[in-house]
Formats: sequence, C-alpha cells, structure tokens
Amino acid sequence: MPVLIVGSIAIDHVKTPYKEKQNLLGGSASYAAIAASFFSPVQLVGVVGEDFPEKYRSLLASRLVSLEGLQIAKGKTFRWSGIYHSNMDRRTTLATRPNVLQNFSPTLPEVYQTTPYVLLANVAPSLQHHTLDQVKSPLFVVASTMDFWIKKAKKALLSLLRRVNMLIVNEHEVQELTGATNLICAGHLILKMGPEFVVLSKGEHGALLFSKSSLFSCPAYPLETVYDPTGAGDTFAGGVIGYLASICNEKNSSKITFEKLRLAVVYGTILASFSVEAFSLGRLHALTQPDIEKRYNSLHALSQFP
Amino acid sequence: MPVLIVGSIAIDHVKTPYKEKQNLLGGSASYAAIAASFFSPVQLVGVVGEDFPEKYRSLLASRLVSLEGLQIAKGKTFRWSGIYHSNMDRRTTLATRPNVLQNFSPTLPEVYQTTPYVLLANVAPSLQHHTLDQVKSPLFVVASTMDFWIKKAKKALLSLLRRVNMLIVNEHEVQELTGATNLICAGHLILKMGPEFVVLSKGEHGALLFSKSSLFSCPAYPLETVYDPTGAGDTFAGGVIGYLASICNEKNSSKITFEKLRLAVVYGTILASFSVEAFSLGRLHALTQPDIEKRYNSLHALSQFP
Repeated sequence: MPVLIVGSIAIDHVKTPYKEKQNLLGGSASYAAIAASFFSPVQLVGVVGEDFPEKYRSLLASRLVSLEGLQIAKGKTFRWSGIYHSNMDRRTTLATRPNVLQNFSPTLPEVYQTTPYVLLANVAPSLQHHTLDQVKSPLFVVASTMDFWIKKAKKALLSLLRRVNMLIVNEHEVQELTGATNLICAGHLILKMGPEFVVLSKGEHGALLFSKSSLFSCPAYPLETVYDPTGAGDTFAGGVIGYLASICNEKNSSKITFEKLRLAVVYGTILASFSVEAFSLGRLHALTQPDIEKRYNSLHALSQFP
Repeated sequence: MPVLIVGSIAIDHVKTPYKEKQNLLGGSASYAAIAASFFSPVQLVGVVGEDFPEKYRSLLASRLVSLEGLQIAKGKTFRWSGIYHSNMDRRTTLATRPNVLQNFSPTLPEVYQTTPYVLLANVAPSLQHHTLDQVKSPLFVVASTMDFWIKKAKKALLSLLRRVNMLIVNEHEVQELTGATNLICAGHLILKMGPEFVVLSKGEHGALLFSKSSLFSCPAYPLETVYDPTGAGDTFAGGVIGYLASICNEKNSSKITFEKLRLAVVYGTILASFSVEAFSLGRLHALTQPDIEKRYNSLHALSQFP
C-alpha cells in the first residue's frame, strides 16, 4: 500500500561534537520518505527552491519515492542550521530560514488523493491540515510535530490531533504539550486530546506506544556512538507508517491492531538507529533489507524474557 | 539458597512534592533485605543504635530476615534526610548523620560465613570489603554504591569491583564512575573494571543488563505516580540477588547464566516498582506473591513482540 508523506525538505548545516557539515539534505519529509521507502512506495508532498541540488532529487527518486508532489518554487530551499551539545540529546537551532516553505500550499496530484496511509511529518500544522483536507478517505493518519509548533500554533495543532490516528512525539514535546513530567501520565493525556495511539520516542531509552488499554515498551537499539541525531524522529515516523502500510492490506482501520503497531514501532526504532550513524541520509539511503533484519533480530534478542 | 546482605539501616526524613514524613525505616540493607526476602531467606549484616524502634526490628523479623548479624551499638541509628524535586528524578540530601554506622566493623556470625549469594548494598566500600573478606567461598557477589563513595572512596571502590560478579548502578553513578555520557559505552567501561555483569538502572526508563557479549533491556513497570523513590535502587538490588538465589541451586558460578540474570533483573524491576508507591517500606512489606506475579505478567505483555 502506498504512503503519502508531507513535510519539509531542507538544506541543513549541522555541527556535532565530532564534525561540522554544510549543504546536507535534511527536512522531516526527506528522512521520513527514505525510511518509509524500505517498506512501501512513497508519495512525497513538499517544496524546494531552484537551488535544490539535482543529486538530492536523484537520491529521493532512487528509492522509489514518487516526486509528482514535489514542487519546485521560485526562491531558495528551506534552510536549517543547528548545533548538538556533548551528550547529543540537547541541540540549539542557530538559524531557520523557511524560504519557499513559507507560502507552500500544495494541490495534491489526483493519484495521491486516495492514498490510505498518511504521514503528516513535522511542518506547520496549517500545512498538515491543508494536506489532510485533500485526502479522500484516509485509513490511518500519523502526525508528528515539534516544540516550535506547540508554542506557536497550538490551536491548529490541537484541532489536528482530533483528525489523526496516531501522534509521535518525543519527551520534550510531550511535556510541552501536556505539562506532565511523568511520561505515563503524559501519554494518556495526549490520548484524551484525540489520537487513538500515541508514540513517545525517548531516544537512547527506546519508545513507548500507548493506546487507551495497552502499552508497548520498545527498547532502543544499543549504539556506542551517535554521529548526528538530526532527523531521527522523522526517520522513526517514516519507518512506522511505511512498515504499517506494508503489512496492512486493510480496507478497515479497525483491523489495524495494537499488535501490528508494536511491529511498526520496532521497525521505526531500527530505521532511526541507522539514521543517527551518519550525517544526513548518509547511512539510511544505502541500507539493505538484511541490515534491517539483522537489527530486528538483535532488538528481539535483547528485549525478550520467558 | 540464603542471601547475605550488608548495608545501612537508617531512620529517614523524606520530603516529596506530595508529603513530608519523619522517622521512617530506611537504609540500603533494609530495602534490599525486605525485597530479597520474597524469594530467599536473608541474613542481614548491619548496625542500629539504642534508639532503633522495636516496630522496625519486628518488621524485618516478620519477613524471615535473620537478625543474628544485626548489631545494636551504643549511640544513635544512622539518620538521613532528603528532599525530592518536582520530577522525582533529582533529590537533594539535606543531612547525613552516620552515628553508629561510622565505626561499624562487624564479625559475621559463623553461619553467615558460608553463604553463597552476597549483596554488598550501598555503604562505605571499606565495609563492603570487610564483609566480603569474611565470606569463605561466595558464589555470586553483587555490589551497589552511590555517587558519594565514587567521589570519596574511589580507590577502595575500584578494588571492590575486581572482587564482585555484578555491579548495579544508576545513570548518575555510571557517569560519575566512567565519565561516559553514552550509556552503552559506560556499561562496557565498567565491565572492563572487573565485574562480569553490570546493571544500569534508569528509573522510569527501565534497566540495562550488560555482559561482555550480551545485553538485556528490561522495561520499567509503568507508574503514573511515584510517591517516594527512596530505596528504589536498593530494593532492585535485593530483588535481583534474592530471585537469583531462589532459582540457582548451583555449586558453580558458571551455571549462573545470562538467561537467569535476565529474570533476576525483571524481578528486581518489579520489586522496585512497588517500593516507590509508598513512603519507606510501606508498600513493600505488605506485598503478596500474586501481586508480584501480576506485575511480571504485565511487564511481559508490554515488552514482547513476535
């Protein structure tokens, strides 16, 4: 089943304690689309400027990502730059230049309008709404966001939460959104805001998947070195929706069970663990299916008990 | 199989965002002994002053904890007071008065000297050494510690690490001990310091069990409210050694496999989850076996995937 993904496409400038790199392919939709493409065909909705390098377009196209919904607008591509501090779990945004993303208001290609699985990756909630408005009968909609939108566009975000099946947030975002410091409370508070499922991603501590009646605690894949955490959450979200679409041939969203979502969260975790092993999409785009299955087996072995 | 536990026995004064309570039974050995006693007979090594309340002595005795190694010394019982901050994962020690613990140098009762399973709960490394010196042929020795000893008695602690099979530390302690911020690196660095196994307890994020060749990621039991985190690590350690002694009838430490230790870590996690639900040993001492098995089943259900 195809997956529709809307989000940002960026040129990043990233500094970590290891290295500094410029003109990297970034953005929530780039990471999510590549991740999802390991499991399902992807329909990308996004915008770039005239300066967008051909090599990045080729990289996306090489992974069976449909670029019919990729608009090239007059002006420059969205640019983001940030710096990671020593423990890699805190970062400072140095500059954000929305450029062509500012006024992006896409009309979805007709073939995209009936896509059953939708990921509203991190981008302005108004754009997430605008995209979802054009999907005729979505079966399962996943959204993610960031602290910036929780602060600046809370009303639009809260109304979005009533339209999606799952929200994926990290620890900082969930605290910003709910005010709760206890993660279990915070997860349940978000369920009350609308989505049937919530994923709380905790980086090196794994992820929690909540429904009203169930909880799944997914371990993190153990990594001794994290080279660049940029896009880990977007990769996770792309892995979740991509895997879910690959195992569900359902016409009915009630068939999308908690058991299937557990597996989707495991695959999201695995894809994210690769993503942080190199800058930009360096590690991710070169992945093979055996690489993924090997980590699946490791993750399984390290979390099971009789 | 019996378990020998040495550690502190304290009278605590604890303040949390919920409540403030005085004259509580505390100390690493108290928590660990009660936790271990749900699985194995316990031999306690510790000291109290003449002010130690009879009701606390009775509480320990009621749980099949041998008090033959409990010394009553002239003077006052060790006292600790601390305050927990809003998110419950940071605390400030307000006062520590070692009192009778200061010069405690026990001679173990003869029957204790051949006990195969030993927990050196958090106390001065010199006292941990002194106790271990008197155990004739220990089969499996677990130690825990705290940041205070890592700072003040690092040399003695490092030499202790070469004498124990397992060290149990939390995130703050492991960073203090190794300087590493990455938890996977930190765990492996401690393995190089001596112990064959390391448990890194992460509170609401669960625990990691390391050996040179294996890793087990144990989820936390989900709690919406933590009333008093005091003693959670000690309870965890007591649960680990108590459960291990209950399933191992081994004369040979090589039979203590990683698979058995996984289960011990799961039971340690469960006991600790009860401990934090009330001040002092309020919840722990009243536990039943069905309470424990119920949480085992929950923890199993929330962590498994196909």
